[in-house]
Amino acid sequence: MIILVQCKDQVGLVAAVSGALSIEHLNIVSLREYVDKAANLFFMRVEVEEERPAAILQQKLQVVLPSDAVIAVNPLPEKKIVVLVTKEYHCLGDILIRHYFGTLGASVQCVIGNHTLLEDICRRFDIPFHHVPYEEAGAEKELTALVDSYSPGYIVLAKFMRILSTTFVLRYSNRIINIHHSFLPAFAGAHPYKQAFERGVKLIGATAHFVTDQLDEGPIIAQQIIPVNHSVTTADMVKAGKEIETAVLAKALRLVFEDRVFVYRNKTVVFD
Amino acid sequence: MIILVQCKDQVGLVAAVSGALSIEHLNIVSLREYVDKAANLFFMRVEVEEERPAAILQQKLQVVLPSDAVIAVNPLPEKKIVVLVTKEYHCLGDILIRHYFGTLGASVQCVIGNHTLLEDICRRFDIPFHHVPYEEAGAEKELTALVDSYSPGYIVLAKFMRILSTTFVLRYSNRIINIHHSFLPAFAGAHPYKQAFERGVKLIGATAHFVTDQLDEGPIIAQQIIPVNHSVTTADMVKAGKEIETAVLAKALRLVFEDRVFVYRNKTVVFD
Amino acid sequence: MIILVQCKDQVGLVAAVSGALSIEHLNIVSLREYVDKAANLFFMRVEVEEERPAAILQQKLQVVLPSDAVIAVNPLPEKKIVVLVTKEYHCLGDILIRHYFGTLGASVQCVIGNHTLLEDICRRFDIPFHHVPYEEAGAEKELTALVDSYSPGYIVLAKFMRILSTTFVLRYSNRIINIHHSFLPAFAGAHPYKQAFERGVKLIGATAHFVTDQLDEGPIIAQQIIPVNHSVTTADMVKAGKEIETAVLAKALRLVFEDRVFVYRNKTVVFD
Amino acid sequence: MIILVQCKDQVGLVAAVSGALSIEHLNIVSLREYVDKAANLFFMRVEVEEERPAAILQQKLQVVLPSDAVIAVNPLPEKKIVVLVTKEYHCLGDILIRHYFGTLGASVQCVIGNHTLLEDICRRFDIPFHHVPYEEAGAEKELTALVDSYSPGYIVLAKFMRILSTTFVLRYSNRIINIHHSFLPAFAGAHPYKQAFERGVKLIGATAHFVTDQLDEGPIIAQQIIPVNHSVTTADMVKAGKEIETAVLAKALRLVFEDRVFVYRNKTVVFD
Repeated sequence: MIILVQCKDQVGLVAAVSGALSIEHLNIVSLREYVDKAANLFFMRVEVEEERPAAILQQKLQVVLPSDAVIAVNPLPEKKIVVLVTKEYHCLGDILIRHYFGTLGASVQCVIGNHTLLEDICRRFDIPFHHVPYEEAGAEKELTALVDSYSPGYIVLAKFMRILSTTFVLRYSNRIINIHHSFLPAFAGAHPYKQAFERGVKLIGATAHFVTDQLDEGPIIAQQIIPVNHSVTTADMVKAGKEIETAVLAKALRLVFEDRVFVYRNKTVVFD
Repeated sequence: MIILVQCKDQVGLVAAVSGALSIEHLNIVSLREYVDKAANLFFMRVEVEEERPAAILQQKLQVVLPSDAVIAVNPLPEKKIVVLVTKEYHCLGDILIRHYFGTLGASVQCVIGNHTLLEDICRRFDIPFHHVPYEEAGAEKELTALVDSYSPGYIVLAKFMRILSTTFVLRYSNRIINIHHSFLPAFAGAHPYKQAFERGVKLIGATAHFVTDQLDEGPIIAQQIIPVNHSVTTADMVKAGKEIETAVLAKALRLVFEDRVFVYRNKTVVFD
Repeated sequence: MIILVQCKDQVGLVAAVSGALSIEHLNIVSLREYVDKAANLFFMRVEVEEERPAAILQQKLQVVLPSDAVIAVNPLPEKKIVVLVTKEYHCLGDILIRHYFGTLGASVQCVIGNHTLLEDICRRFDIPFHHVPYEEAGAEKELTALVDSYSPGYIVLAKFMRILSTTFVLRYSNRIINIHHSFLPAFAGAHPYKQAFERGVKLIGATAHFVTDQLDEGPIIAQQIIPVNHSVTTADMVKAGKEIETAVLAKALRLVFEDRVFVYRNKTVVFD
Repeated sequence: MIILVQCKDQVGLVAAVSGALSIEHLNIVSLREYVDKAANLFFMRVEVEEERPAAILQQKLQVVLPSDAVIAVNPLPEKKIVVLVTKEYHCLGDILIRHYFGTLGASVQCVIGNHTLLEDICRRFDIPFHHVPYEEAGAEKELTALVDSYSPGYIVLAKFMRILSTTFVLRYSNRIINIHHSFLPAFAGAHPYKQAFERGVKLIGATAHFVTDQLDEGPIIAQQIIPVNHSVTTADMVKAGKEIETAVLAKALRLVFEDRVFVYRNKTVVFD
């Protein structure tokens, strides 16, 4: 089972947790900890081999840790997600295939598109698809109601090419994951490949991040790049970019769904 | 020998050059060409096995190519360079070692520093070192005179942490090569690692580029990144960054010194 | 349109081809050539913007090139493929998604499995699935007849975990593409991840190659690696390996389907 | 200060160490642990902010840990190394530059070469150079005496192209670090780039490893690759390989000198 701890830093936190686990005869398989000195924050992720009742273990840890400690024992054992899309298929296709074969680590509740192009692929996988034309008045209200009706743990923007309102973003704070088609902070905003082509860069990339009310400014979970050269057109970049976008979003989702990511301020701690 | 051609694009350019070489019984070992559609420009780099008098071959190519064609046969056979430094040693050390063992592809005429910290390492390699305190009045005039006295083909900014004047930059247009410690256009300007740390990126990088009068905006020759995670401090980034800066500058210098780089507008064509 | 040329090397080949194209007023968009000195072989790939009748252009090129030249103008415009699988879904899933969205560059005629586990996913994409229990007597005869009935240009082994007979391999010489789960020649044969774990390597990889009668010895099309560390178990490697296997096979298929790959002796020339 | 622990695995080891450190009011900055299940071995590396007398802390840890525990508090604070070379300069050059600028993390006692080609570069850095013609009778005895006279913590084979005897290797067990010019286990033995060229691989690499009496079979510390294509000759590979060899050896030395590497059986645990 997995134990996550976040609290103000002080001497003895590792000893407190590992001591409590030792008393329970729980063998630590993996332990990762990190202290953000500037923020004076302590983060810890422990994996133990055996299973114990989560609530009881949580209580025992609460006793030995400071009162501000946020402790999660086997957090969100079954992740439910809602996926938002526009027209591009590559990220959604990857999610649907993994979901179908049981390796996504989450349960896709539905797909919501502001176009209908991806409805058929969802139908083929027996995943509910909802069309919400985001451009129209009242669309976000409809979207919110729809999302809420599924009570998802996370909302995945799998190439959703619309900007969500601050209200929506704050409602699902630190629970909306986006894939942006550039190595942020380079080329934030629209048309990053066009910008990249014009700047003549020798690499392009993708960034998966939590969404905040600052466009393309949210905490980064994962990013990666591929080399390009002068002969690569904007259209080539779009094509090559799809591969790296798919890979980076898949990696970010795996990290989040395996409870390896802490979010705080505008950063993430990723125990990969 | 190496032949470079740059001109307006039209049908038959490859045929013209390869036909002329064929008549001379020159066997093409490597041929690379690129057409920038938007700029309507044609670029070509050919390597042939045998040697011929450069001036005569150049004339024969001039005859078969359009009048606007810029042709270079064995351009700059011996590259002379001047290296500008401040205090950081890693790029200079790499250049000096390669130069000493004859694998740099260029001849280091001298090193100019706005500090004296790197004087001793130059002395050990019998390379003239000049101290030009860039902060003082008249320094750039002194620098210009000094650089000119060596008639260098290229000026390499191997971690020269001062901003050169527009006058200086234009004097050596497309001949000043800089290494910037970020994957541009992300984190242009000062303290890129501090910016990177604060943004919480998951990769840092370096960019080698020709210097223009727009700070950190010049044509990019090479760039590369390394992954980082939350636990990497700004100081760690500085340390790790030195490795990637050294590697990227070394690569860019090799490409330029092997006549593999065309510069036009704000871009490069790199036939690597 | 795309023109491929392979022949014995001699002076004037580039001139001959580019001259013939120039006479036809065909503008060269991309030209790549390579000479294998040891084998004395010349390879060339040209892309021109405009379309011309392929047969006529082929004839005109035949006239200006040596008699041994193998010329292909717009080779195999529509690639038909048959996919062989066992139980693992990741490569097949990727192929089916790309095929469904029209970006595979080939037409999947059918999938043949020696298990039935992947039948349902094929059905969902309306792709015929055939079960050929490869372990049984007569299975290869059945397989051959089945494959032949589709007249495929290529056979893709998308994690087909059986060894094909020499007869089968020679029947489809240079047309069977396999994905092997190691960076060959390291860890050829069975259980490469187990071998990799035991050797304590710090990277694992995948290799896409044409199949010959020498197991895991065929011409390599593409390969790539990912870093691992001591904590990665064999099971972790299998999981991480799926990502890299999928990516490498996808890349190799794209290169082959875009006519960027020449095969000769035990090597490939890849004009990527 | 740094604390390393290695012992048989059991419940409570992390608690024991972190508890003892907590009692001493030592704040854990970084904690990494790993359990090799198959070998039933526990490895731990802890960094604490403050300094304490090493011997006393070691004693206190000994009390709370099993009797088989190997504990090192601030192990080998000043690493002394001897470097063995033949003719290639790239790894040695990198080591000398880092050493000169105080960033190697070790003190180079001397360089020993079986050729004299690299004597001058050592002289320029005021590093003693000894010529031991390894081909001659009695050379290894001379080498052993010479190495012993410097009492080095580690022996670095910076492109030493001779095979050391089993006697020599066992004398400095787990203390000899070699750089091999391939991604082992591919292309072990002589001429890996020639082998790589003939096999037509699409990537080449380098491996830093501890030397055992099994040639190229020792525990791997670090390895990395670079992509190559068909046009890369054996000579090109040698040239490109130098870059990756230098980088991989530099990384391995940093990891070892920062006490981040455990060696056991034929593997390493690297807490990087």
